[in-house]
Amino acid sequence: MISEQGRPGTSVETHVVSYDGNSVAERYDRLATEEPLEIRMRAGRHTRTVAITMRTPGADFELAAGFLFNEGVLGSLEELNGITYCLDGEVADEQRYNIVNVDLRGDELPQLDALERHFTTTSACGVCGKANIEALRGRGLVPVAAGPRVAAALLAALPDRLAASQRVFASTGGLHAAALFDARGELIAIREDVGRHNALDKLVGWALMNGKLPLRDHIVLLSGRASYELLQKAVAAGIPIVCAVSAPSSLAVDLAREFGVTLAGFLRGARFNVYAGRERIALPAPE
Amino acid sequence: MISEQGRPGTSVETHVVSYDGNSVAERYDRLATEEPLEIRMRAGRHTRTVAITMRTPGADFELAAGFLFNEGVLGSLEELNGITYCLDGEVADEQRYNIVNVDLRGDELPQLDALERHFTTTSACGVCGKANIEALRGRGLVPVAAGPRVAAALLAALPDRLAASQRVFASTGGLHAAALFDARGELIAIREDVGRHNALDKLVGWALMNGKLPLRDHIVLLSGRASYELLQKAVAAGIPIVCAVSAPSSLAVDLAREFGVTLAGFLRGARFNVYAGRERIALPAPE
Repeated sequence: MISEQGRPGTSVETHVVSYDGNSVAERYDRLATEEPLEIRMRAGRHTRTVAITMRTPGADFELAAGFLFNEGVLGSLEELNGITYCLDGEVADEQRYNIVNVDLRGDELPQLDALERHFTTTSACGVCGKANIEALRGRGLVPVAAGPRVAAALLAALPDRLAASQRVFASTGGLHAAALFDARGELIAIREDVGRHNALDKLVGWALMNGKLPLRDHIVLLSGRASYELLQKAVAAGIPIVCAVSAPSSLAVDLAREFGVTLAGFLRGARFNVYAGRERIALPAPE
Repeated sequence: MISEQGRPGTSVETHVVSYDGNSVAERYDRLATEEPLEIRMRAGRHTRTVAITMRTPGADFELAAGFLFNEGVLGSLEELNGITYCLDGEVADEQRYNIVNVDLRGDELPQLDALERHFTTTSACGVCGKANIEALRGRGLVPVAAGPRVAAALLAALPDRLAASQRVFASTGGLHAAALFDARGELIAIREDVGRHNALDKLVGWALMNGKLPLRDHIVLLSGRASYELLQKAVAAGIPIVCAVSAPSSLAVDLAREFGVTLAGFLRGARFNVYAGRERIALPAPE
């Protein structure tokens, strides 16, 4: 399902048999594209593959930059010399746009221990949620800044603004989104992906590459649930308010409380729940 | 958010500020537990950590077995000597139930190359969806057996049966589910998790440990979207019919078509779409 130019699109057309309870119709429908992306880091004479992630094509440089930043591998925009697709002659056409090279200014690759530990190696500090949160401190993550205080109605209005802008989702029903708003509720940027972690990596990568980090006056809205991994990325990007259309996990709430993030969930109509950091939301006094 | 016994539960209670558009109420609500699980393999004198995954506690041995089977690391139940929690004296209380040891009968650990490639290493066969699918053939995955043929109305009825059984989801709103049905639509088993891949790993692990693989006469229903990763696990377990409440991705459809899986999506009310393998569903003739 690759476009003719060899470059995969964000969605593709497919044949579907549609059943409505009584009759069958054959038609063409759109699917969210899912393709692997290999992220390579290069510095001096060193090259190393640091991750392969299944993603929706479309903001690959942002995804690579945001992933590396959020995982603590890339410290700042200044360390970056450039990001390119791998256009080596030996790479087959259908793979060209599935490999990105992240070129660093220095001569040495950064320590990738943290990244490896994240995936398959034992952590010295143990295996439990509390230890995970402590490990983030060890990596240099700090509580987010005080940031803005916003009206409850402003937060409640964000999902409708997101829905109006989720173009690929509208055509496929198959994408997660992460949307960045300013403190007045204006939509700044939105990124979509089959993986919810990728959508947020793309958004943070966009901010990194545009010199906007930390996002200390901003609100992020997640189209689905809020997990530990997503809160960890929000803290890395300095985001003070995280809203999720669905439920947070226990560890997402723990992490938000530890790092001073305002976390709201179940944004439905005029309603939502606040799990952490209520001081940033102007709420009526409890009855 | 650990229970008093040191063993994490599937959900935990937390303090919530609930806003309904007009007023605020403070109350306690339940969250789906998210905690890391470290999976270690042991054979003879060898021990190795093969994965750390964020999961909802509760079916950890099934999760470990299913993950290793679905990734092609564990070939059959016969290779397994036992699965235990790591109760070494040196492991802190809050970590005991976050580490499982998978003990093999042999003296050597299996090749873990495929698993590593899956996460961070370059694949020799390239980086694109088509190559991913070819790599599965290389790993020995084969098209699923012919399996059953079922009525359209039977498939359409499955989401209600799943919803009636999703207990932790009902209390937290924060869990994915994978449910196994027989060809008459009877619910056989259901597993839930904050990670959709974990829910299916748990289900397949249950089948493995109960001698029920391959699941050649069965239907799996996924509570969310269907990605490449989930279809890959379904093929590994030999499941002929996969249904998803939400959208499939492009690569999930490609994989279903390549391996002969019936894939239905958007099961809503009496409706659904069929993306692959329509021959297993008794449908009215197209108009």
